[in-house]
Amino acid sequence: METDVLVVGAGVLGLSSAYYMKKRDPSRKVVVVEKLSGPGQGNSAKSEGGYRNLFASETNYLLADSTIDWFHHLQEDLEYDIGMHELGYLWLLPEDEYRERRTPFDVAKKRGARILEYSSEELKQMMPDLITEFDDSEDSQMMGLEDVEMGVFGPNCGSVDVDRLVKAYEAEFLKISGEIHYNTDATKLLHDPVEPLGIPGEPFVWQESRIAGAETSKGKILAETTVVACGTWASKILDPIGFDCLMRPKKRQIFAFKDPKLSRLLNTKDFNEDNKLPVTILPTAGILLKGEVSEESIWLACADNLGRKFELEDDPKPEDDYYANNIYHALVQYLPCFEDVRPANSWAGQYAINGFDQTPIVEASPGLIYVGAASGSGIMKSDALGRIVDAVNEEKEYATLYGGRGFKCSDLSIANRRVEKETLVV
Amino acid sequence: METDVLVVGAGVLGLSSAYYMKKRDPSRKVVVVEKLSGPGQGNSAKSEGGYRNLFASETNYLLADSTIDWFHHLQEDLEYDIGMHELGYLWLLPEDEYRERRTPFDVAKKRGARILEYSSEELKQMMPDLITEFDDSEDSQMMGLEDVEMGVFGPNCGSVDVDRLVKAYEAEFLKISGEIHYNTDATKLLHDPVEPLGIPGEPFVWQESRIAGAETSKGKILAETTVVACGTWASKILDPIGFDCLMRPKKRQIFAFKDPKLSRLLNTKDFNEDNKLPVTILPTAGILLKGEVSEESIWLACADNLGRKFELEDDPKPEDDYYANNIYHALVQYLPCFEDVRPANSWAGQYAINGFDQTPIVEASPGLIYVGAASGSGIMKSDALGRIVDAVNEEKEYATLYGGRGFKCSDLSIANRRVEKETLVV
Repeated sequence: METDVLVVGAGVLGLSSAYYMKKRDPSRKVVVVEKLSGPGQGNSAKSEGGYRNLFASETNYLLADSTIDWFHHLQEDLEYDIGMHELGYLWLLPEDEYRERRTPFDVAKKRGARILEYSSEELKQMMPDLITEFDDSEDSQMMGLEDVEMGVFGPNCGSVDVDRLVKAYEAEFLKISGEIHYNTDATKLLHDPVEPLGIPGEPFVWQESRIAGAETSKGKILAETTVVACGTWASKILDPIGFDCLMRPKKRQIFAFKDPKLSRLLNTKDFNEDNKLPVTILPTAGILLKGEVSEESIWLACADNLGRKFELEDDPKPEDDYYANNIYHALVQYLPCFEDVRPANSWAGQYAINGFDQTPIVEASPGLIYVGAASGSGIMKSDALGRIVDAVNEEKEYATLYGGRGFKCSDLSIANRRVEKETLVV
Repeated sequence: METDVLVVGAGVLGLSSAYYMKKRDPSRKVVVVEKLSGPGQGNSAKSEGGYRNLFASETNYLLADSTIDWFHHLQEDLEYDIGMHELGYLWLLPEDEYRERRTPFDVAKKRGARILEYSSEELKQMMPDLITEFDDSEDSQMMGLEDVEMGVFGPNCGSVDVDRLVKAYEAEFLKISGEIHYNTDATKLLHDPVEPLGIPGEPFVWQESRIAGAETSKGKILAETTVVACGTWASKILDPIGFDCLMRPKKRQIFAFKDPKLSRLLNTKDFNEDNKLPVTILPTAGILLKGEVSEESIWLACADNLGRKFELEDDPKPEDDYYANNIYHALVQYLPCFEDVRPANSWAGQYAINGFDQTPIVEASPGLIYVGAASGSGIMKSDALGRIVDAVNEEKEYATLYGGRGFKCSDLSIANRRVEKETLVV
């Protein structure tokens, strides 16, 4: 098969990229191949679906803020039900961390992000299940528990149903005659000479070469541009051509709770119109909770770092022990309502971590565009990244993000990268 | 076993680091473990051994220039025969590339690097075997051969015998009672709680944790600081603890030639006191040649990039085809004396490539220091990197390089990296 553009991966980044390349020129043939049987079935749909515009780096802010605007457009103007709920993001901060993060929060505010602050007294009123003060007991000290000094709240952050989101991208792409081939595995990129001589062994080291498409489980596909957007699987096809995707896969687990004991916490009032628990980040161990409106449950994730291995897993599994004998110890100290509560459901996906600056990469090489390494925030930046891939394919210096803001494409490249250090990490 | 410092890897970076940490405080116990049977047996001693102070980035210049000064000190003052020969580095540049690289060469000059320039006429005199002009024949055009416009020469660059260099580091380290255990494989880093509670499953996500040593094939070694300096093998022990070493291994082959037809080229006059072929970079395909004084041969390597896979190999092999059916086509156009000449010997090692900025990394995490990702220039920066590892271990802001220049340690870290883009790459 021959095509103008081949996109490897029908996750959120592949479909967004495919959509914008096709939309720019509907006469162009854009083919997406996906080894799984549907959109977003790799890691996209396994995500917790949180989104936030609270970032200290301008790059992250632009990518996320414009994508969130696009989510609103999808849901409100185009009437896709992508399960968008403006729950807000609530950072529960001990005194020292509050002091440390004050500057980055101020920066985010200056950029245009709305931010509210709640004192520990206010938090106690709004979230009566939360413990904000600990005694000097051995247990508290042993666990390094710190009093919650302040809640910093981003009301324009929230949660989206990623499965529905990828289906919306898929529908928009198919509507303009995009082609998607599911159950089609791109096994190898074609590294070919720009001007073939017909001699065995090409391309030689002295020859100009390019990526010319891919071998797939359904045959060879030749393409002018090949976009590698297969997330944690990118190294499987990029390592063999010697292209460093600067990404390592790391498992992230989600535990869902439906216990009646958590009813008051789930239905936390006053933070959002849904009157549901906002996306809430505990002061310890990167534990994150959110109210999931669609199923009246609380979802829990944990951003474990050192100690959590890098390794590609096709079908990562949640670990019962990880909740019950690990997170639980700390969780129940801040939220005693979790006492003896066990998850009703759990699953796991993988993040594509860029260990360098935790910011997505869009890098071009002859015939090839790589988008990925989004480090856990690819969904909330998906619309912007798709537009940037399209702009890179057009060799444009700037991409126009949803809403009209410009973005310098090379800022996300490897060769000419210009990314500020992000200080607002979970 | 317990030790103050455990160094994993007795390659050039491990031994240099171990030496400086031991030298600072000879009462401190510094133990090096190495899975192979001698120093530098991984990839160090398989290197071509070139060194240069021609770099455009200040970081690279400081690291290399001070290390080269140290090589002189080792050979001339301490009287180690490390086979150091100031052959010079000769870049053969087509017109456009000469124009492009003029600024970076000027920058290197301003920093203190000596640089000479030779016109194509002068080059023809000095290196009569070199073709500097090509006709418009189909062959020349097909191969993209370009006339050599200028030779840019760094007289203070050259070549060192890496096997002897690592043995010199080893000897200096042993002299001050450093301990090295060969045939000892560090299989796993110990990720332990800072304050152990004695509960199974530690460290928990809410616990402060650190690297506390390593399991080895000869038993557990507990250490205050563990230095991971095992080059291309670093990911094998760092991936499991979720620490991104930002490095991917890539094979590099060396072919050695002893044919009498190459005698005039080998004994190229006027560039250096040895009257031997300088390290010479051809205009095409990253082909690099050098006269090897110790064995009266010419060594050839090729910096292949796209198309050369990333993959860890314990015992990489040179590929006959790679020379005869690939490099040879271009090589023989520039240097017809290679016609029908086959390598007398060949071997292969692996580079630890940092795909981000091709500059070494020295990153600390509690109990751990990682040094590596030197991307093919670790040997020529080895002395500076060892001193920086020592300074990081002392939590010093600056390291003092050989000769007294200061170096800000965090410039090579991941978290606070400050590295200029290098434009003088081979």
